[in-house]
Amino acid sequence: MKISTATVKGTFDIVPSDMRLREWMKNTVLNIYKKSGFEQIETPSIENLELLTKSEGGENLNLLFKILKRGEKLDLGKENLSEDSICDLGLRYDLTLPLSRFYTNNREVLPNPFKAIQTGWVWRAEKPQKGRFRQFTQCDIDIMGEKSEIAEIELITTTAKALKALTFDNFTVKINDRRLLKSVITSIGFEEQEVESLCITLDKMDKIGRDGVTKELLSKGYNEEKVTAFLSALEDLKGLDKEVLSKYNVEEEVLDSLRRVIEVVQKQSKGVYNIEFDVTLIRGMGYYTGQIFEIVSNDFGSSIAGGGRYDKMIGRFQKEDVPAVGFSIGFERIFSILKERNFEIPDATAKLALLFTSSDDINAVLEWANGLREEGKIVSVFPKNKKFGKQINNLIRQRFDAYAICNEGVLGEVTKLEAEEEEK
Amino acid sequence: MKISTATVKGTFDIVPSDMRLREWMKNTVLNIYKKSGFEQIETPSIENLELLTKSEGGENLNLLFKILKRGEKLDLGKENLSEDSICDLGLRYDLTLPLSRFYTNNREVLPNPFKAIQTGWVWRAEKPQKGRFRQFTQCDIDIMGEKSEIAEIELITTTAKALKALTFDNFTVKINDRRLLKSVITSIGFEEQEVESLCITLDKMDKIGRDGVTKELLSKGYNEEKVTAFLSALEDLKGLDKEVLSKYNVEEEVLDSLRRVIEVVQKQSKGVYNIEFDVTLIRGMGYYTGQIFEIVSNDFGSSIAGGGRYDKMIGRFQKEDVPAVGFSIGFERIFSILKERNFEIPDATAKLALLFTSSDDINAVLEWANGLREEGKIVSVFPKNKKFGKQINNLIRQRFDAYAICNEGVLGEVTKLEAEEEEK
Repeated sequence: MKISTATVKGTFDIVPSDMRLREWMKNTVLNIYKKSGFEQIETPSIENLELLTKSEGGENLNLLFKILKRGEKLDLGKENLSEDSICDLGLRYDLTLPLSRFYTNNREVLPNPFKAIQTGWVWRAEKPQKGRFRQFTQCDIDIMGEKSEIAEIELITTTAKALKALTFDNFTVKINDRRLLKSVITSIGFEEQEVESLCITLDKMDKIGRDGVTKELLSKGYNEEKVTAFLSALEDLKGLDKEVLSKYNVEEEVLDSLRRVIEVVQKQSKGVYNIEFDVTLIRGMGYYTGQIFEIVSNDFGSSIAGGGRYDKMIGRFQKEDVPAVGFSIGFERIFSILKERNFEIPDATAKLALLFTSSDDINAVLEWANGLREEGKIVSVFPKNKKFGKQINNLIRQRFDAYAICNEGVLGEVTKLEAEEEEK
Repeated sequence: MKISTATVKGTFDIVPSDMRLREWMKNTVLNIYKKSGFEQIETPSIENLELLTKSEGGENLNLLFKILKRGEKLDLGKENLSEDSICDLGLRYDLTLPLSRFYTNNREVLPNPFKAIQTGWVWRAEKPQKGRFRQFTQCDIDIMGEKSEIAEIELITTTAKALKALTFDNFTVKINDRRLLKSVITSIGFEEQEVESLCITLDKMDKIGRDGVTKELLSKGYNEEKVTAFLSALEDLKGLDKEVLSKYNVEEEVLDSLRRVIEVVQKQSKGVYNIEFDVTLIRGMGYYTGQIFEIVSNDFGSSIAGGGRYDKMIGRFQKEDVPAVGFSIGFERIFSILKERNFEIPDATAKLALLFTSSDDINAVLEWANGLREEGKIVSVFPKNKKFGKQINNLIRQRFDAYAICNEGVLGEVTKLEAEEEEK
């Protein structure tokens, strides 16, 4: 019996046309990031299981791919086996936790502040569904070691510039601050340890609306009066009005910083995009400590980038905390939008097929090919088929722009190939 | 207690300077490959365990990283647990097996012949040692669907061109044919099923010499007369002499093809490298069916690329066999040679630091930065430190070429930074 050739559920093969689009996206983004002084790094795909399970990865910890111990370290004969007793490694579920480990591990050779670019695969054992994969690309920039809001400003404007280069222009940057959220929630009378649970429900506002949020909060057992006050507060807080905010004990410093970032980013946007305060913006991860942001495409109604400040993560690996901010582009989401749009990559390299017959001197044929390659053309050398018509159709389908036939040592004319109608 | 920040044993972090070299290597090679008509593809890092364990991966099957089943599929309470009963996935150990699966899975949308480029991570649970990693990059080109030796010629000359672009020039291409080896071995009187065991010992010639090989073969229980005949045959066969070869029943077709490839490649090399027949070249994998090749650096005495024809692998996934040839560059080996050589990447992009003070309009500072970025410079924006001397030293160490200070809205002169002596 033949072995199944399907990819692992939730993963995908990348055929040449998809790969060209993905590489174009990656190079476009890298080019923008590098000009702004960010530098590429990479970490291994596998991390020690202890590092992953002790992280504040929230829901992602339930989605870990765990790797079995090997050799003598593995004893399946024991009683009461647990996953963590027979596994020692796991696949990374994001690039932020590995970056923090990396920073501590390599800090002597890293600049300060350190501006990192990471693109790479991450793995999550999610229920596979449209647009949700078990292996997908993340594409992040982070600034470590900069406590001032120039870090936030550089990350937001650079990410926006990258999105624009990826042909997105109609988008909105939403910004909030975890500290502001906490002040509001506690000033209403909730306990500090209730903040996370409230935020999880609040994060669903987009999907289930104000009524749904109310219902869920009441079912969680929260006092109706407080819930009503909380939801009114959110209405109240749609602006960054000083008087309104003073009611909720939001620190002046938090507000000033938000205002400065909004003002500078808005000016830098040159009207291409907007930035707005959104008190309902939450972000899923537990590790954020300050400003959080998300970019929403107005054309596609979905988030295409997200990030925030996480000043307390590196302190889990070393004595001193190091301020850190990151912004991640939704690579797979953007890829699928561009693909649906039938986006054409700007790529003018001519693709030529050089066909030779058995009477040809193969050395001469290769000389011609190399000459054309040095002129910048893409050249493939193939034996000329007996079924020539079929071969030409095949070349057209493969998007060759032209072909030339060698015959008895003479290179024939370069003949253009006309593209047919797109086949499905 | 702080969590360990070391990478998983046998894996490595890639800091910015290493990443620049690796990216330069990758782009240099991709550029050469693409001009020759090869197209990039990618497959998932994880494959179904069944696919991996049923492959002809030889020793690599003992080095698999296996991934634990998840959720309901995992029952650790059962008796007689085996690795394969509690694992369903594994990390790929090479790029050739996934490519064959990919080819069958996507053949309707792939050109014929199909010229593939793959670069990506592979994983093997080897004993970590100098130069041997548990996660490392492979960089392969393959031609599927071409039975004539134009495939071998294109792969060898293209790989050699890539090595030259990577600044290697003093190397030798060694070539052999599995069919020739088999003819020689069986004509001496060995059984066909003994070929693999003989080859495994023969593959150690470089390390243990002729005496060591003899000893090992005798200890394996082979007849001394036959072993002597075998080793003399190898001496005899150092050339491709027709008369000598006729003694060993080597097929004319096999010899003609070897001669043609050697002749064309030698001519194409323009004297930069040599190609020679080497009857002791074996290659470790079980799946080769025809010509096999390896490139050895004469400066470093080690193999820097290897490959061969494997016409029977795709037939394991689909009805028809499809001819296939591949060539893989030793990416990690080349990286470590270039790094040891202190190879300087040709990269002239100036790196500029723009320092601003609290009295500055951050918008104006960012305008300046963006203008310089559009001119092609790499620009980082930082707040000016109180400890200015320390900051300048820091910038020099980070290989900034120049800096400029903004002060009260005026952009100061661009000041060059002189590189210090390399620090260790």
